[in-house]
Amino acid sequence: MELEHPLPPGMRDLLPEEAASRRAIARAVMTSFELHGYRVVMPPAFEFADVIERGLGTLAAADVLRFIEPESGEVAVLRPDMTPQIARIVATRLADHAPPFRLAYEGTVVRRRMGRAKKHRQIPQVGVELCGLPGAEGDLELLALAADALEAAGLVAFTIDIADAGIVRGLLEGTDAALAEEITLALGRKDEAVLAELASKAGGDVARVVPLARLHGGREALVEATKLVAGTRAEEPAKRLLALFDAARARGLSRVLSADAGEVRGFAYYTGTIFSIYAGGPGEAIGGGGRYDDLLSRFGLPMPAVGLGLDIDALAWALRASGRKIVDDRGLVVVGGDAELMKRLRAAGICAVAAADRAAAEAYARSWGFAEVVEAAEAAARVVRNAP
Amino acid sequence: MELEHPLPPGMRDLLPEEAASRRAIARAVMTSFELHGYRVVMPPAFEFADVIERGLGTLAAADVLRFIEPESGEVAVLRPDMTPQIARIVATRLADHAPPFRLAYEGTVVRRRMGRAKKHRQIPQVGVELCGLPGAEGDLELLALAADALEAAGLVAFTIDIADAGIVRGLLEGTDAALAEEITLALGRKDEAVLAELASKAGGDVARVVPLARLHGGREALVEATKLVAGTRAEEPAKRLLALFDAARARGLSRVLSADAGEVRGFAYYTGTIFSIYAGGPGEAIGGGGRYDDLLSRFGLPMPAVGLGLDIDALAWALRASGRKIVDDRGLVVVGGDAELMKRLRAAGICAVAAADRAAAEAYARSWGFAEVVEAAEAAARVVRNAP
Repeated sequence: MELEHPLPPGMRDLLPEEAASRRAIARAVMTSFELHGYRVVMPPAFEFADVIERGLGTLAAADVLRFIEPESGEVAVLRPDMTPQIARIVATRLADHAPPFRLAYEGTVVRRRMGRAKKHRQIPQVGVELCGLPGAEGDLELLALAADALEAAGLVAFTIDIADAGIVRGLLEGTDAALAEEITLALGRKDEAVLAELASKAGGDVARVVPLARLHGGREALVEATKLVAGTRAEEPAKRLLALFDAARARGLSRVLSADAGEVRGFAYYTGTIFSIYAGGPGEAIGGGGRYDDLLSRFGLPMPAVGLGLDIDALAWALRASGRKIVDDRGLVVVGGDAELMKRLRAAGICAVAAADRAAAEAYARSWGFAEVVEAAEAAARVVRNAP
Repeated sequence: MELEHPLPPGMRDLLPEEAASRRAIARAVMTSFELHGYRVVMPPAFEFADVIERGLGTLAAADVLRFIEPESGEVAVLRPDMTPQIARIVATRLADHAPPFRLAYEGTVVRRRMGRAKKHRQIPQVGVELCGLPGAEGDLELLALAADALEAAGLVAFTIDIADAGIVRGLLEGTDAALAEEITLALGRKDEAVLAELASKAGGDVARVVPLARLHGGREALVEATKLVAGTRAEEPAKRLLALFDAARARGLSRVLSADAGEVRGFAYYTGTIFSIYAGGPGEAIGGGGRYDDLLSRFGLPMPAVGLGLDIDALAWALRASGRKIVDDRGLVVVGGDAELMKRLRAAGICAVAAADRAAAEAYARSWGFAEVVEAAEAAARVVRNAP
């Protein structure tokens, strides 16, 4: 049957159980964002390519799904990232508001997924952007928010790995662009042999990139990194990262914090702090973000900004891997329930459907994830017990 | 500024207030659907045109936004309607489940809007499909569900106008297709002069279409319609509609019910009951649906089906027109709140942000719709009062 009605590559349906889980997770995370005073905005599902692409970071042009928008004849893209859209909204629609801008979003993006089968996929994301709060104060707010939101979703064990784009960028400044790119790739793979060879070719401070490949873990890695890059352009970013690490510990985040002085993810995009969130289960980050202080200026309103995004599907995977049942079986199938009784059950906040007889009710409950089959009399008693 | 970063025609951003209102309405309606035992499914945002279009009803081909999906080279469409997607899911992914199928959806569709500026628009929809429950029993469940869901969203005054596609279809059976189309259009405009002229051209039972144009309102219109079409192929549908009207009144829906014996909306699509929901405010239906018993068979699983869809933006308009404030100002701006206090506020379920001084706090609260500005001591007292 399925072959008769194929879906486009990378697209899929969410059946009731998975859909309920995605909704429950998104709701928990968004509620946490809202409790922190973040206000939800909703940009459209597609936009003109030249607007969106002005704000894109590391996404390659080939990873974006383009089409000709028929009314205008111009190239549009299904949004591959909501961050440029939020930046556009801040700069053009909310510029008169009092900073800082605390905005949240929920939606799906369409892109080729990195590090996996190169299909376009529809990825469910939730996230926030905090604009107008520079440096450590803003970074810290988002790190604490990330931890709160994940805990609100029920995730107990996770790691927030922090880094700073300025460290490697500082050491590579002035290096030939093609060589710098090769070095970045080798550092991403933690390939020290190739790194050493490339660094000796580049000369200068670049040699110090090689030991960075090992400087990840706890505070001691950052202390060592700070010594390693002393006197170079990377010194200030390294000190900034160490200070953020200490401030995050003081904020109560020790349990979830790790650091990587040689992280280069999103290197070209971020201007300062970078963070990635990991948990057991999915073989990739469940979320991340960082500081991009030049993003808003691309839309005409220069302002510091830091963002956080979570991949709801990866988070669902991590929750399942941790043994957590995200959505319990829900509701009652009522044998012989009449319209009046069903109305009373729902008014009492009880999910309920009626079935003609017990056999039909049992089959229905099994198929659709209902917790219980009850007779009408028992259901009526539940209404009374549930009443306020 | 906006001209520098235009959006594609018909697309728009939802800023915080409107986004919060859309989310609150969707949540209330979806919760009502879920309490009635409907399970949420999530189909992808685009699909192959030949799959989606197999299940499309009255939408013209030109109203759908198409593009070439790059991996397959095939034509895809941004979904203009979620009903064909749900039908595809039922037929191909859930066929082994116990009927009836009670499925709910929430998402945006992209289409040219009928009766307005002919731009593609992104329309936020929520709806349900009930498959496997034939005739009046299924129709009645959806009429009652529509009323409950609208009341849950806070709408007090609305009308559910019911009709039956079989009445006009029965009278026009055997009439030349082009002439039947003209008659349908004239009936849609309630243009009795043109109707009379066309009907005399068609001959036979078609003359009885003319008085149908006036037979709308309450039960008496349906009684008269039943007499009018006695002895024709329209007699059975007319009796069926009258019986549904009576059953809906017995179910407690008198207050919201009206009927139209000559309704032709979705004429080609629906096979039986049609209903449209109206309320003061938007100049168009806020939702509707009906029975399409041949839809599932187009995906290989013949089964009766009836659906309901609501346009969240139109519903929001109706709520505002009724004087209802959908989302209240929310949360506290705390003057001099420290991280510990803010954490306690949020743990108590209070939306809160900190501000450095009162002037900044007042400006922030005004910009972002916060209900109150309070000093840290007062905020701490609130935590105690809110504690369980």
